[in-house]
Amino acid sequence: MQREKVLVKGERLKETIEKFADYGRTSNNGVTRLSLSEQDLKVREYFTECCKELGMEVKLDDMGNMYATLEGEEDGDPIVIGSHLDTVKKGGRFDGVLGVIAGLEAVRTLVDHNIKPKVPITVMNVTNEEGARFEPSLMASGVLSGKFDKEVILKSTDTEGVTFKEALESSGYKGSVENRLSKAAAFLELHIEQGPILESEERSIGVCDCVVGMCCYEIELTGESDHAGTTPMSMRKDALFAANDCITDLRSKLSTLDEDLVYTMGRMNVHPNIHTVIPNKVVFTVEARHKEEEVIKQVEEIIQGLPETVEGVTVQKTKLWGRDTVWFDKEVVQTAEAAAESLGYTHKRMVSGAGHDAQFIATYMPASLIFVPSVNGKSHCEEEYTPYEECEKGVNVILETVLSLLEKQ
Amino acid sequence: MQREKVLVKGERLKETIEKFADYGRTSNNGVTRLSLSEQDLKVREYFTECCKELGMEVKLDDMGNMYATLEGEEDGDPIVIGSHLDTVKKGGRFDGVLGVIAGLEAVRTLVDHNIKPKVPITVMNVTNEEGARFEPSLMASGVLSGKFDKEVILKSTDTEGVTFKEALESSGYKGSVENRLSKAAAFLELHIEQGPILESEERSIGVCDCVVGMCCYEIELTGESDHAGTTPMSMRKDALFAANDCITDLRSKLSTLDEDLVYTMGRMNVHPNIHTVIPNKVVFTVEARHKEEEVIKQVEEIIQGLPETVEGVTVQKTKLWGRDTVWFDKEVVQTAEAAAESLGYTHKRMVSGAGHDAQFIATYMPASLIFVPSVNGKSHCEEEYTPYEECEKGVNVILETVLSLLEKQ
Repeated sequence: MQREKVLVKGERLKETIEKFADYGRTSNNGVTRLSLSEQDLKVREYFTECCKELGMEVKLDDMGNMYATLEGEEDGDPIVIGSHLDTVKKGGRFDGVLGVIAGLEAVRTLVDHNIKPKVPITVMNVTNEEGARFEPSLMASGVLSGKFDKEVILKSTDTEGVTFKEALESSGYKGSVENRLSKAAAFLELHIEQGPILESEERSIGVCDCVVGMCCYEIELTGESDHAGTTPMSMRKDALFAANDCITDLRSKLSTLDEDLVYTMGRMNVHPNIHTVIPNKVVFTVEARHKEEEVIKQVEEIIQGLPETVEGVTVQKTKLWGRDTVWFDKEVVQTAEAAAESLGYTHKRMVSGAGHDAQFIATYMPASLIFVPSVNGKSHCEEEYTPYEECEKGVNVILETVLSLLEKQ
Repeated sequence: MQREKVLVKGERLKETIEKFADYGRTSNNGVTRLSLSEQDLKVREYFTECCKELGMEVKLDDMGNMYATLEGEEDGDPIVIGSHLDTVKKGGRFDGVLGVIAGLEAVRTLVDHNIKPKVPITVMNVTNEEGARFEPSLMASGVLSGKFDKEVILKSTDTEGVTFKEALESSGYKGSVENRLSKAAAFLELHIEQGPILESEERSIGVCDCVVGMCCYEIELTGESDHAGTTPMSMRKDALFAANDCITDLRSKLSTLDEDLVYTMGRMNVHPNIHTVIPNKVVFTVEARHKEEEVIKQVEEIIQGLPETVEGVTVQKTKLWGRDTVWFDKEVVQTAEAAAESLGYTHKRMVSGAGHDAQFIATYMPASLIFVPSVNGKSHCEEEYTPYEECEKGVNVILETVLSLLEKQ
């Protein structure tokens, strides 16, 4: 027999989103809440209060990650719902915090309905996902999954010269290594898409198969810097002209690969960058993302295949970094997809082009990542917006997924 | 009957060049001698001493220009030989100073040979040609020719906040407006080419017909800044891709115009210039130079003809400035050319792609500009070099031109 659907209270969800946004709200209705900043400490305190009101126990680990746990009937592996409360400077009201509120509202709804879960439900706030105050991004989930060396991470320094270690120790949020997320029945992250796909296809829910792999190269062109008025065209070694040729070449070849491939030349610096001087050096980045390793390999072959010299200008290609596609747990993904379907929401399987804590956590436990639409695809800006009814659908999918997973425990 | 040729002393010329280079010589054998700096004041003092030893009278005008005059048999319009003693930061030992030394050595040679000229010979040092300390370049010749407003120029400020007016007044080189260069039989400027043409054609002397006209535009492309990982290629408005299209388009069309046309995209800034973000704004300059007004007009039509939008990105074109070609005095140019020929030097008629004081002075008196080769076309750098024997040929052409002009007075 089909159990009755349990749904979150939409009005309370909206109020909660706005209440959390009060911590660091900007004059343009965005949020600035850098990790372990005064505003972040205040929102952490508020989050703790909300959880304690529900009878949850709040623990901290050695990276400042917070775990608020609702007891289960049994002491089995918990189901964890989490994301991050920190934002970039002048960020939005949804990126990160929505995934933490999703957990809080899911638990509130269980409590409303006197549903005692079979296993514990943990709501997690992951420290410094954005990397906006302390680099790198995905800092704490990176340490938990063994991708980053904790000793190196502790030395990361903000623009004021404060190390992450110092900020963590003075925050009151440094806990014990024993409390780290180590084993769970599932990790669920609800996040805004940060892209235009769901909105343009008029769908409410994106169930991610994976976070796509990527590669990033730097192309450096070295020519000669001469006087713009006195050097005939035939005697020039213009690094900007050569860069232009390379970009045209790259675009033409990359556009023939799979249509889901994305590629961007986001950073470009010209030297000496004076209008009367022929550029002698241009450096630009090319980064590309796709879920299939084979496609990324083709991209790298195209980049490596750029000529050694173009119009007398030398071309150097340096791989800055790459990462493999991280696939989410098939069973959890299917459970989330079935949840969206059973709730009657439009949904689609998709990939995440951006990085999320779930991708590191997925390397050592079953995880999944659920998207709700971003208006105009915007994020990391004050205009970032997801309609409240779409947020509500996202949280309902999380709750329904939890309930489905509980049935399987 | 052909008069006997009078030639400068090569060894003394070389010593003089090196002596002047001692004022501001850098560790890499270049020169830093910003206008009215301590080193500039010292070289002005040394120049004054050299001129006084020859019995010349030194006068100053209200812009700090220096005029050292050797008396003539008659009190007619003088023949003026001049250029500038200031340099850019980490400039070379030849740019500017060679044209002043040419005058000094020409007079020394006349004195050596007891030749008393029919009209006065004036050696002129023009203040702040480079504009490296106080913008704009060609500052003092611009005021003399009425191109620049003196009151505006006096307020020009260096990076330390010192105005040109203050620097001039405290220098001791502020003279009287009555001493301004106002009328002359001819103005002759010897300068290094600052380009590769003479060297590549193995010629010693360039006789300039003109300083070429130019136009300079700024192209601003405005697209949308989205996440590099989450925005499908078809939904992007990438300002860098659009800039790339525009540059390709401009190059393709400009390359079909006259082969002497030069064009440069020297400055380009990308925003926000982050490798993971699609650029929403790119601004680049296009400047082009050619002696024929018609060709510059075609260039402007091509630039103005760029589409209003490219790949969904808006394209704005703003003309920053332009200048018309300045033609030198035909008779003086022919006299200089005949001088080079009679001395047996390889020479060619050419254009100046760079700006020089002679171009402003040419607007109100007969003037000409003579080039000697620049090794590798380099200038405004410490490697700037012209072999001493080439400098010697250049000074001999100046001296021979003076002697020919004297015959016509």
